[in-house]
Amino acid sequence: MKMQQIDFKKNNGLVPTVIQDVTSGVVYMVGYMNDLSYKKTRETGYVYFWSRSRGVLWKKGEVSGNMLKVKRVQLDCDRDTLLIQVALEGRNVCHTGSTSCFRYELSKIL
Amino acid sequence: MKMQQIDFKKNNGLVPTVIQDVTSGVVYMVGYMNDLSYKKTRETGYVYFWSRSRGVLWKKGEVSGNMLKVKRVQLDCDRDTLLIQVALEGRNVCHTGSTSCFRYELSKIL
Repeated sequence: MKMQQIDFKKNNGLVPTVIQDVTSGVVYMVGYMNDLSYKKTRETGYVYFWSRSRGVLWKKGEVSGNMLKVKRVQLDCDRDTLLIQVALEGRNVCHTGSTSCFRYELSKIL
Repeated sequence: MKMQQIDFKKNNGLVPTVIQDVTSGVVYMVGYMNDLSYKKTRETGYVYFWSRSRGVLWKKGEVSGNMLKVKRVQLDCDRDTLLIQVALEGRNVCHTGSTSCFRYELSKIL
């Protein structure tokens, strides 16, 4: 395996992908990419995920218009997790209308 | 299910957990928590993961001394992914000696 090759085999073909704003550093969400969605992401410069529940390729924002323009792609030491820094085209990332999907504070819940 | 309850069932008891520096915003790594490691994390204020390869609870930094002090815990809209902001006690997060586990640049690899 080449140094920069992604290990899609470890997790049934899916690699968790952290989406972070390239400017603010806000972590927006975690999605899953398979080989196909990664290739589409690299080819188009926009984030594509693989929907585990629907079993289809989906471009983030294809319905909402809130798309994620790729700015930087990094792979972790185990080669099984991606970090993609993006510029958000639109207002929100989350389908609930929140800017970020991380919307529940658990800090006070023990 | 309560609003702030974590859905450990979706992914065989494991929840991907993004670790981010609370000050710099750097994303250090993604680990996996089960119910036990989450409880230990909340009880102690330090990050514990569940090792998928070894099948054991492990405190991040128990060998290296580079521990992760919990500052903020957030849950995503699907309740199946955590974002934990931390203060790094030590110098590096990655076992390779890098500050962050995201050490391979893929931006130019198509």
